[in-house]
Amino acid sequence: MNIDMIRAAEARAKGHVRETPLLWAPGIDKIAGRRVFVKAECLQLTGSFKFRGGWSAVSALDPDTRARGVIAFSSGNHAQGVGLAARMHGVPAVIIMPRDAPKAKIDGTRAFGAEVVLYDRETEDRDAIGAALSAERGLTLIKPYDDAQVIAGQGTAGLEIAAQAAGITSADVLVCCGGGGLTSGIALALEANAPGLRARPVEPEGFDDVTRSLAAGRIVRNSRLSGSICDAIVTPQPGEITFPILSRLCGSGIAVPDGDCLHAMAAAFRHLKIVLEPGGAVALAAALYHPKAVEGDAVIVVASGGNVDPEIFQRAVRT
Amino acid sequence: MNIDMIRAAEARAKGHVRETPLLWAPGIDKIAGRRVFVKAECLQLTGSFKFRGGWSAVSALDPDTRARGVIAFSSGNHAQGVGLAARMHGVPAVIIMPRDAPKAKIDGTRAFGAEVVLYDRETEDRDAIGAALSAERGLTLIKPYDDAQVIAGQGTAGLEIAAQAAGITSADVLVCCGGGGLTSGIALALEANAPGLRARPVEPEGFDDVTRSLAAGRIVRNSRLSGSICDAIVTPQPGEITFPILSRLCGSGIAVPDGDCLHAMAAAFRHLKIVLEPGGAVALAAALYHPKAVEGDAVIVVASGGNVDPEIFQRAVRT
Repeated sequence: MNIDMIRAAEARAKGHVRETPLLWAPGIDKIAGRRVFVKAECLQLTGSFKFRGGWSAVSALDPDTRARGVIAFSSGNHAQGVGLAARMHGVPAVIIMPRDAPKAKIDGTRAFGAEVVLYDRETEDRDAIGAALSAERGLTLIKPYDDAQVIAGQGTAGLEIAAQAAGITSADVLVCCGGGGLTSGIALALEANAPGLRARPVEPEGFDDVTRSLAAGRIVRNSRLSGSICDAIVTPQPGEITFPILSRLCGSGIAVPDGDCLHAMAAAFRHLKIVLEPGGAVALAAALYHPKAVEGDAVIVVASGGNVDPEIFQRAVRT
Repeated sequence: MNIDMIRAAEARAKGHVRETPLLWAPGIDKIAGRRVFVKAECLQLTGSFKFRGGWSAVSALDPDTRARGVIAFSSGNHAQGVGLAARMHGVPAVIIMPRDAPKAKIDGTRAFGAEVVLYDRETEDRDAIGAALSAERGLTLIKPYDDAQVIAGQGTAGLEIAAQAAGITSADVLVCCGGGGLTSGIALALEANAPGLRARPVEPEGFDDVTRSLAAGRIVRNSRLSGSICDAIVTPQPGEITFPILSRLCGSGIAVPDGDCLHAMAAAFRHLKIVLEPGGAVALAAALYHPKAVEGDAVIVVASGGNVDPEIFQRAVRT
């Protein structure tokens, strides 16, 4: 995993993956008490940065392999990213989802062109289903974060940040972090193109495996995997590929409570006119409500959208 | 009023006014039954295209005149556009607003750095107050749409559309239209830089003075000025400067009911992750729900944000 792979992913993405804007607003700066620049990944195709990784992985396959199709396990943004990337390449995508996944997510994934295969979490083994389908059809598995080409795709957001924030010589770049694919990709891109900028992972309180792993110097797991409104970025532990990168390049992690994410969603609605999901709002929440955790006159945050539950959004806007 | 003024406004705007993205999403195309490209002016500073006109007008003043400050009558987006443009130039802005304007709009305008002067609609004459203040302090009045430099600023959105939609040789460009400043500016920019694209005004049903004026070949007024959730684009009649331009360059107007605007806001929330206000969603509503009013394989719409009432937004998202 290195910067050349990110640059190659950027070249493959040109004209297909959207360059998202770096936004700011006086009302946001006022809450944070410093300049805040928001990399609006909610404006990426499918509404989340996951499309970058999906596009990178699908476009990196050799044409014969790609033509047979791709497969992913996901009930959320990764599914949609892979689904749309496959459709735009004209190849099939199979997404394995639990039968009890929210209907909106199942429909959303189908709308992006994927074939959804449902399984029963109690009685069926999703890995066995996936393996059988892959063998039968010759599908290539695309993992959500611990995959070099996926990390390379997410890293293209870091190349954009380095170019867009060229006037900022020193700042923290707060990144919404699950398994660390986006954070490690951005960290590598910044190391190469903007060494004064430092990536820092932000997670939901109670699901801060990356923050605790960085502090411990070894991979530490979350004790539970449900119970946060930031479900989009809840993962069991940092990846085998991502953790060494995070460990070498990132500053310490930050964990924020769910309530702060709702407030950050409301601030983004009001001042930036963008729609974030809770997990995509953690980094903005850290910038707005945990100013002492961040150093410098300016801060850059990565914000993402994805599958926003209208009920939760309404709750946020009412706050 | 000509294309050279728009190009000059663009030169003055460089590095200050945001180039907004032209977004698309499969879910939007599916509803509309054709390709839809959304010029997301809600991502402009202050949340609406009005900042373009405000910046253009303030930046066009000679330095001595500008230093004395500017004044505007507005309870909405124009106030914030002028307010922020003045603050970014380091000069004072006075905004005259009715005392019964929503507190959120008064606070919002103050937040962008303007001095707000309130008047009583029943007992006071706002023009007299404005004239007295202007005389006393040497302020320059910036009108919301019937002002050549304001039209020139709004027209910079049209120059961006022409460049961003370079692959589209023929299409309607649907524009949310009040007094016609944005529509006429875009129409002039397209005439020069993308003659295959045609600007068309979109208005709320019952407040379609521009649509009826274009049909009649002369300026026709609205019979009432309140009662639409699209209050941001309700004006008495087309402007004296804007109407001849609209008349020469635009296709027929389209009027859409308020309910369609709520649905369009929900579609933008869900598929594009952007926040529109009702008046900023009329053009998207026309593209999505009035396909027969539009010709061609693709359509471009201009969408804007501004002062979004959280209650109305929640109503839209619930639909």
